[in-house]
Amino acid sequence: MAERSGFVREITPPDEDYSQWYQDVVTKADLADYGPVKGFIVIKPAGYALWENIQAGLDRRFKATGHVNAYFPLLIPESLLIKEADHVAGFTPEVAWVTQGGQETLSERLAIRPTSEVMVGAMYAKWVHSYRDLPILINQWNNVVRWEKVTRPFLRGTEFLWQEGHTAHASGDEAMAETLRMLEVYHEFLQTELAIPSRIGRKSESEKFAGAEITYSLEAMMGDNRALQAGTSHYFGTRFADAYGIRFLDQDGVEKSAFTTSWGMSTRVIGALIMVHGDARGLVLPPKVAPTQVVVVPIGANASTEVAAAARALQADLSLSLRVHLDDRPEFTPGWKFNEWEMRGIPLRLELGPRDLAASQVVAVRRDTGEKQPLPIAGLAGQLSALLERMQGELLARATRRLAEHTHTAADYAVALPILTERQGWVEAGWCGSEACEQQVKADSGATLRNLPLEQNVPATCLVCGAKAHYLALWGRAY
Amino acid sequence: MAERSGFVREITPPDEDYSQWYQDVVTKADLADYGPVKGFIVIKPAGYALWENIQAGLDRRFKATGHVNAYFPLLIPESLLIKEADHVAGFTPEVAWVTQGGQETLSERLAIRPTSEVMVGAMYAKWVHSYRDLPILINQWNNVVRWEKVTRPFLRGTEFLWQEGHTAHASGDEAMAETLRMLEVYHEFLQTELAIPSRIGRKSESEKFAGAEITYSLEAMMGDNRALQAGTSHYFGTRFADAYGIRFLDQDGVEKSAFTTSWGMSTRVIGALIMVHGDARGLVLPPKVAPTQVVVVPIGANASTEVAAAARALQADLSLSLRVHLDDRPEFTPGWKFNEWEMRGIPLRLELGPRDLAASQVVAVRRDTGEKQPLPIAGLAGQLSALLERMQGELLARATRRLAEHTHTAADYAVALPILTERQGWVEAGWCGSEACEQQVKADSGATLRNLPLEQNVPATCLVCGAKAHYLALWGRAY
Repeated sequence: MAERSGFVREITPPDEDYSQWYQDVVTKADLADYGPVKGFIVIKPAGYALWENIQAGLDRRFKATGHVNAYFPLLIPESLLIKEADHVAGFTPEVAWVTQGGQETLSERLAIRPTSEVMVGAMYAKWVHSYRDLPILINQWNNVVRWEKVTRPFLRGTEFLWQEGHTAHASGDEAMAETLRMLEVYHEFLQTELAIPSRIGRKSESEKFAGAEITYSLEAMMGDNRALQAGTSHYFGTRFADAYGIRFLDQDGVEKSAFTTSWGMSTRVIGALIMVHGDARGLVLPPKVAPTQVVVVPIGANASTEVAAAARALQADLSLSLRVHLDDRPEFTPGWKFNEWEMRGIPLRLELGPRDLAASQVVAVRRDTGEKQPLPIAGLAGQLSALLERMQGELLARATRRLAEHTHTAADYAVALPILTERQGWVEAGWCGSEACEQQVKADSGATLRNLPLEQNVPATCLVCGAKAHYLALWGRAY
Repeated sequence: MAERSGFVREITPPDEDYSQWYQDVVTKADLADYGPVKGFIVIKPAGYALWENIQAGLDRRFKATGHVNAYFPLLIPESLLIKEADHVAGFTPEVAWVTQGGQETLSERLAIRPTSEVMVGAMYAKWVHSYRDLPILINQWNNVVRWEKVTRPFLRGTEFLWQEGHTAHASGDEAMAETLRMLEVYHEFLQTELAIPSRIGRKSESEKFAGAEITYSLEAMMGDNRALQAGTSHYFGTRFADAYGIRFLDQDGVEKSAFTTSWGMSTRVIGALIMVHGDARGLVLPPKVAPTQVVVVPIGANASTEVAAAARALQADLSLSLRVHLDDRPEFTPGWKFNEWEMRGIPLRLELGPRDLAASQVVAVRRDTGEKQPLPIAGLAGQLSALLERMQGELLARATRRLAEHTHTAADYAVALPILTERQGWVEAGWCGSEACEQQVKADSGATLRNLPLEQNVPATCLVCGAKAHYLALWGRAY
């Protein structure tokens, strides 16, 4: 039995070193590898197939809500980038600059897009003349570059893949409705497809997107109780329209600035998925987005051509309705294969040995619970679909329970601080709205104000200063 | 009746100024716009929807032939790029260089990928150890940048979107089989989906890809009789594997270099599609890839709520099996709409007026032939599907006939020259194999050796020098 380049090795236990556990899962589940330039990863086929399923799930929802896709250029002239003051201040420190094209030195530096508000704004200014040209509801799938100092696969990369929606509207109300609609689309998507519950709310002034009037975020809770911002939706008012000249003649004959929004979700959600569902044995994929939902492992197949043939027939039959892989490699033991597919997070494993075959059954093993059950081969596809659906639901239920259990309501700063400092979870508490109190929490605990939940049940007093609270705020240490 | 920013305007007649006609179609069919940096286009929703259908058609075929998708980094360190001598010589003159990241000047320049052989080669060297790790059959969808001096939307851009397949194999035979398999996949795809016939063959030494041992190309004939290289498939032998260290321990216990291939098709095929099928009235979309296959235009709908309701019902019904758009905008006349949808290339228009409704029929108008026919509303979806299929077949038949009629067999250089110079078509003739004769044709006529067709029926003598011919060669002026 050959070991394939020492592929199956121990994964660092998550309670020993969570960060190392994460990186072990990324590389050992074969999702990504490190490229030759620091901060740039290669998304390997197993990771990319997951991204393709995530893309499909999002793209379907974008189209169902009236959006179309387009593609805007990678490089942005510096003179264009600097037109919106807050935006440029926020992004310039992390921009990669192209200064040479072929043999010539460029007369103006070109930024590799860190995001495309600027490019899109300049084009919308060309396209929009009348209220009839609005709304514009465009999304694009692309790569962006941000020169980050500390990088981690999927979580924070110098280059990452994402989608960025950019819309322009004739009124602020309509733009705000769009901002909230896409926030809800993300929320439902994370929940339905990735089995990730998230808390949605508004960012504080200090945490909002550079150039936005309002930023909404979705915060998911990772296995180490830290928060991960899984998506954002921004309302720009007329800021970008004013800076880039998106003006239109309204029905009343008056020329006005358009109201714009943007919203994005990235390969970062792969990191979220790993940390919400993964365990000591590796990755756990929610069935809906798992590129392979079921792996069939014949037992003692070398000895029995009958088992091998039955396994092939099973795979062919199940593939009509499920995504099924048959692992009939002769050079590995069943035990080795079990480990490998568990590490890679395949939701269900089917074991088929001579005795199973004689009994016209398979043994199905759930990746998340390890639960084993014999299932009759007759009518198996339907049984497995039901099992996968149950698993998807239970993954979400478990994550939702976890999030609730680790979100603590606190009125007393002395009680809240150790919760945040020791990463026992998040704290939901009153906030007076001052940046001083926000910074105090950060200084004392390392936690940041994640967002101001959409449903505001405002407590009486501010957690930090004890003055009257104006908001309900969610605090937590974050990625 | 408002004119929407003067949207519908004359398109320059193709026989007056073909190049201007092309650019008019691109912008007036709303496929693309020019970005703020020279050579960079914005692919607008109508163009991108077409690209999405092209992607889907190709991706399905790649997966059916055993390939998986992945994603490799955008930026390549200069030290890595220069390892394969021919490759670097071919690409360095057109590379865009990143020299600054955030506030720091980089110690090494980073190239924006002009293509990814180098990056993929470096990663495959990490991944391949044993013959068990081969073959690797990976494709990626991405953007690339080449600092071109003369650019034209879709045909030659500083940035373009494409797919690049990269495979590694244990033997040269297997790699060569892969190279030819993907050439055939492209050929069938162009023919089936885009209704574009192409001539496949091997590039001459002077025209092959920088770093390749052998390059195969697909050459399509545009409406002005010029050739457009619509895709390429490269066999690298062990050149890249030697340069980047893709080495494996073979079954015989000997360490060897892998054999690699790459193959690519880009948004350039959108340009091909425009020039193969377009006409004086604008774009003509082959039904299989048309984002909208049928447009329903109610006639006098303002006056008749009954017609409006019937049009909506028709759209809903037909949308179950076809991609249908209902144009019920009250502010435009039917005639204006006819022009617009013809310009945008929608394969079929359905006109529905009060008299049609009374007769329980619609009038269907084919975009390519202008042919009108009344069709009963009962069973319409089936009728339209058949009509679209016939149209797809006839577009291909017409293009195939055109290609045959404008490909001239010539033995006499004096006869061949005016055909090439005056762009009457291509010339198929004998070639001795010398670069001198190849360059002579170019100097005399502006035509290049497109390829050496796979089916080699070698004529007796070289078209240029009259010496013994070793190849059948295809010559033509090209984009």
